[in-house]
Amino acid sequence: MPGIDFTIFKGSPNNGIVEAKSHRDLPTGTQVLVKITHSGICGTDEHFKHADMALGHEGIGVVQQLGEAVQGFKVGDIVGWGYLHKTCGTCSSCMAGHDNYCTQRALYGYTNLDQGSFGTHAIWDASWLFKIPSEIAPEHAAPLMCGGATVFTIIETYNIRPTDRVGVVGVGGLGHLAIQFLAKMGVRVVVFSNSDAKRAEALELGAAEFYATGGVKELKIGAPLDHLIVTASFLPDWMLYLNVMSNMGSIYPLTISNEPLAIPTMPLLTQGIRFQGSVVASRAVHTKMLQFAAAHGVKPIIEHFPMTKAGVEEGMAKLREGRMRYRGVLVA
Amino acid sequence: MPGIDFTIFKGSPNNGIVEAKSHRDLPTGTQVLVKITHSGICGTDEHFKHADMALGHEGIGVVQQLGEAVQGFKVGDIVGWGYLHKTCGTCSSCMAGHDNYCTQRALYGYTNLDQGSFGTHAIWDASWLFKIPSEIAPEHAAPLMCGGATVFTIIETYNIRPTDRVGVVGVGGLGHLAIQFLAKMGVRVVVFSNSDAKRAEALELGAAEFYATGGVKELKIGAPLDHLIVTASFLPDWMLYLNVMSNMGSIYPLTISNEPLAIPTMPLLTQGIRFQGSVVASRAVHTKMLQFAAAHGVKPIIEHFPMTKAGVEEGMAKLREGRMRYRGVLVA
Repeated sequence: MPGIDFTIFKGSPNNGIVEAKSHRDLPTGTQVLVKITHSGICGTDEHFKHADMALGHEGIGVVQQLGEAVQGFKVGDIVGWGYLHKTCGTCSSCMAGHDNYCTQRALYGYTNLDQGSFGTHAIWDASWLFKIPSEIAPEHAAPLMCGGATVFTIIETYNIRPTDRVGVVGVGGLGHLAIQFLAKMGVRVVVFSNSDAKRAEALELGAAEFYATGGVKELKIGAPLDHLIVTASFLPDWMLYLNVMSNMGSIYPLTISNEPLAIPTMPLLTQGIRFQGSVVASRAVHTKMLQFAAAHGVKPIIEHFPMTKAGVEEGMAKLREGRMRYRGVLVA
Repeated sequence: MPGIDFTIFKGSPNNGIVEAKSHRDLPTGTQVLVKITHSGICGTDEHFKHADMALGHEGIGVVQQLGEAVQGFKVGDIVGWGYLHKTCGTCSSCMAGHDNYCTQRALYGYTNLDQGSFGTHAIWDASWLFKIPSEIAPEHAAPLMCGGATVFTIIETYNIRPTDRVGVVGVGGLGHLAIQFLAKMGVRVVVFSNSDAKRAEALELGAAEFYATGGVKELKIGAPLDHLIVTASFLPDWMLYLNVMSNMGSIYPLTISNEPLAIPTMPLLTQGIRFQGSVVASRAVHTKMLQFAAAHGVKPIIEHFPMTKAGVEEGMAKLREGRMRYRGVLVA
């Protein structure tokens, strides 16, 4: 059968990156064949490198071929995709516009896909492909597809207002985008980072205040926070932050962890605090995120790696070791 | 100086109940002298019986004397009060109508008050006294002042809708009121209790479904829940309930505990779950709660105890041992 041969970079049981050949039928129906040009490297990839699946979920590429039922895309379009691959369109979440919570969704890492964005090509359902605005360079678009969407959806879904005082914990792939989005909206952004190493850059990105938290027993930040977006790679001491939250404030933990959140019960109750889980973005919010980033010049700070086994290994190692400034992008 | 002598029942360092005499100046300014007729016994009292403070925060009584600045009350009014005693009126929480989160609030158990509702009299600021609607008997009003307010504020503040599917964990002082409020609003109420002992009563109170959870490894309840109000006296296994929550569903833990909430991180994120802390009610919501209870005949199921040292001890022991059906009320 005619089809397309392509290369993918997979996880494996011993956590090594494996370069493999794959073959897929040419796109039919609502499928789109994309030639991958860029892929962001996300912390989530780390959690699936033991799995026999193609890694990567911040893909950018060029449309090469379309299934007969695809509408709205043409060959040559620059498109991107993220953590979500397909949704049902008919469950209560989809009907309500919250298709990122579709009960039938195919989610990176929870389905054994034979294609991610670490590779040469991918065949994707058109429903979760996004056209990249011309103002955004493909290499800068890649980190927006998961990292950008993940922080933007919190702002949009949970109604963070320009008049709110918002904390961001961690200046990394997600945090450095959250600071930019919030600052461009007129929010006073209060940044927490382990050391002072990223202070100057955080302020340049739009932070109004910066606090180094390493070894600190009590934060002193003046007025309390209405919202706190936690992008740190390790779960923090929640008491440290509960003490600087407004009553009825909201905390959004984004840290990927197999440890439970150990939240002090009485402060949660008496302060009326919300801990709000969130995952990537609905299509509607993802689209708004791209429009906002294009309109306001929100631009990830990236490091380049080649789209090769060595490039994947080097980029993932740098991220794992906390040395990435701030998002790695594999370039074909 | 002229004043009023009265009896109070206090905690003590060895956790014993102490009957003591107290003396207060007659009310001035916005103060109101109330002769106590009834007091509910709440689980929170248990947590403060080591403290040298008058216990009780579900008080009902008759206005005996008014400070010169009091407006809106007259001698002979039947009034109630709860967990909150005074607020500032000027902080951002107060200005927003969320005066239960006043940053200057005096909260039962967090201030060493020399008067609670376990006693013969109390002098209270008029700002946090509520007139009891004539449709509600004083003995039934008492448990509404904390227990009723605590569950009603969740429904009202977090916009629980009559079309939502709402779970209630625990059929006790709070749970049996939550079931009634929700059922009277047209909500489909799904009740979880350790055993089947309270099944018939829960259904009679308005529950649509009842599940015994003791020893159960996996709940099977059909459609998932939009909201879950947790009134159990011990923190539950959250995974049991996360598995029956709708994506983007909300969980309201009301269990008083010094243990942290151990919330599985990944389900919180990928299901977009909210854990929302909450404490008692604002004055606006407290007033609506009383109006709704009066209009719809929401009536606590109570057991009577005498307002004596022995009565306090017996009532608190019964609650502590899980034998109360469902709220104890001390009667003067």
